[in-house]
Amino acid sequence: MDLRIELAKTLKPKPRDEGALGFGRIFTDHMFSMDYDEGQGWHDARIIPYGPISLDPAATCLHYGQLVFEGLKAYRTPDGKVVMFRPDQNMQRLNDSNERLCIPKLDEKDATEAIAKLVELEKDWIPRAPGTSLYIRPYVLSTEAFLGVHPSGSYLFAVILSPVGPYYKEGLAPIKIYVEDNYVRSVRGGTGFTKCAGNYAASLRSQVEAEAQGFSQVLWLDGVDRKYVEEVGSMNVFFVVDGEVVTPELNGSILSGVTRRSVIQILKDWNIPVSERRIGIDEIAQAYKDGKLQEAFGTGTAAVISPIGTLRYNGLDMQINSGEIGEISQKLYDEISGIQTGTRKDRYGWVYEI
Amino acid sequence: MDLRIELAKTLKPKPRDEGALGFGRIFTDHMFSMDYDEGQGWHDARIIPYGPISLDPAATCLHYGQLVFEGLKAYRTPDGKVVMFRPDQNMQRLNDSNERLCIPKLDEKDATEAIAKLVELEKDWIPRAPGTSLYIRPYVLSTEAFLGVHPSGSYLFAVILSPVGPYYKEGLAPIKIYVEDNYVRSVRGGTGFTKCAGNYAASLRSQVEAEAQGFSQVLWLDGVDRKYVEEVGSMNVFFVVDGEVVTPELNGSILSGVTRRSVIQILKDWNIPVSERRIGIDEIAQAYKDGKLQEAFGTGTAAVISPIGTLRYNGLDMQINSGEIGEISQKLYDEISGIQTGTRKDRYGWVYEI
Repeated sequence: MDLRIELAKTLKPKPRDEGALGFGRIFTDHMFSMDYDEGQGWHDARIIPYGPISLDPAATCLHYGQLVFEGLKAYRTPDGKVVMFRPDQNMQRLNDSNERLCIPKLDEKDATEAIAKLVELEKDWIPRAPGTSLYIRPYVLSTEAFLGVHPSGSYLFAVILSPVGPYYKEGLAPIKIYVEDNYVRSVRGGTGFTKCAGNYAASLRSQVEAEAQGFSQVLWLDGVDRKYVEEVGSMNVFFVVDGEVVTPELNGSILSGVTRRSVIQILKDWNIPVSERRIGIDEIAQAYKDGKLQEAFGTGTAAVISPIGTLRYNGLDMQINSGEIGEISQKLYDEISGIQTGTRKDRYGWVYEI
Repeated sequence: MDLRIELAKTLKPKPRDEGALGFGRIFTDHMFSMDYDEGQGWHDARIIPYGPISLDPAATCLHYGQLVFEGLKAYRTPDGKVVMFRPDQNMQRLNDSNERLCIPKLDEKDATEAIAKLVELEKDWIPRAPGTSLYIRPYVLSTEAFLGVHPSGSYLFAVILSPVGPYYKEGLAPIKIYVEDNYVRSVRGGTGFTKCAGNYAASLRSQVEAEAQGFSQVLWLDGVDRKYVEEVGSMNVFFVVDGEVVTPELNGSILSGVTRRSVIQILKDWNIPVSERRIGIDEIAQAYKDGKLQEAFGTGTAAVISPIGTLRYNGLDMQINSGEIGEISQKLYDEISGIQTGTRKDRYGWVYEI
């Protein structure tokens, strides 16, 4: 890939206090951009100073939401290397999202290399404190100026970087969630399996109402029967029931998380029983009443593993593992974040060295 | 409302051939903009030259799709007045969309007046040929720069104008549609009743596949049972069955169209039986087989009334009214477009004179 690099004339000061990074509010000095035009394909790959995107007021993305994104992280290992976690999986999913939203596909290898080059240029921005990383946000927006429900003829693929602390202010402390029985995130035949902007817009109202009641997230149920577990907030969800780990099977309305599939692989290698299947919320409540609900946790790039301490459903407050992080949750967090940050051996070839 | 006006230094040439306007590709010289900031509310209402919107690459609208819009039209009447059709209804629905997507509400009266002022300034752009109008696109985008699934703290409300011809190149000629049995537009508990960007992004794939097969639109079924009629493309849908006009009842996943409610009102006044209820697609197919499916049409701001000539479902090609526009469809089109353009009496107070 032909890549033009235009360096920023002045650099921003790096954040001094890595304990106060928060999530997604600080951005580095440069960004990657590449254009798509009908008949020309993807072209003009460039690293340029981080700066405003100029859109025609009729740009289709602002009206019809042809917008997809990904999220992954870069880490600094103890021996000074810079690594990313399974970027190929993110680029593959980005193309799955592109296909569903009628956005032209990217060359996954080129896109990964572009991200690697950007991260390398910005490596001084990768924080060093435990639990921190450089969050990478690749995204595509449609740019053609016209009003009509039809795919755009032009697009922008961009990548921005943000040094981040833990996604949840609770860190690895268990979070409180409730089962959402009013709003629905997605339904089969829709866009739930993609990372498109509209999925997240649809989830905001529920998120706001949860926070107002002192919860961190909601547990989404399926849109058809409203009784099968789908995801928790913007993470996949796992339960440990009577020694078996279960997670909802991918059904078209659930995101195929990279952390999710890593967790499943690791559990299999540990010979811990794990299954992907349809899970009724009533089944979880019954397991709790029977004393068999041992752990629950969310998985995702932002938080890696997020233990669920309290789950409210239908007036029942289930306190899981006495509100403490469970043994399997902790082991998975240690293993995956260990692989990601280079403190544990990567037996899987998941780490991409820059 | 305090409104600042900055006039464009040079004006664009107006389109010469009003028969070749197309839809949503030409924009006028000016636009309306207004900002929202937390703690400050909506502020800085202004009419400015039509020009690019500059967004931080992390602007939440580009990632999480906090984007809503409306669509309405201005017309020139035979006696030289400039009018809009039921703008209060659009502003009310815009606020319904805002609420669902956690966007701060607008003052509906102020927003209507702002649109009226913009249209007045641009009145020379209103085309005169039959079937043409000035399409008005109010929309809201979230602008805060941060990555996290949470409502933005800042927004932009903008209005742009486009002189348009008929939405469908077929004009009032009957269109071919098929019943979509794979993709789903929306489900109860979701955002189907709003005009948010994500709904339209989700519909693109189906629209593209329909066009590739020679159809203009698809007929959406409900997301739960996949057997009840919802909408056609981006319009509401009506059927005339054995002398009765029926349309799906509003159920949370169907847009509450302004043309839809106008059609219902007019039919009632004409003493033509009309009902809003759940309609099975099998019921429509059976009515066709029994020779009782007399007419079918879509309703929406863009096309007003769009007769359906062919409806394909489950291998059955239903040719409705011999593929010709039906009597009720034609009467409704004449009445509504007559009221809109000032050639028929407005008994309802629907016309807003600028």
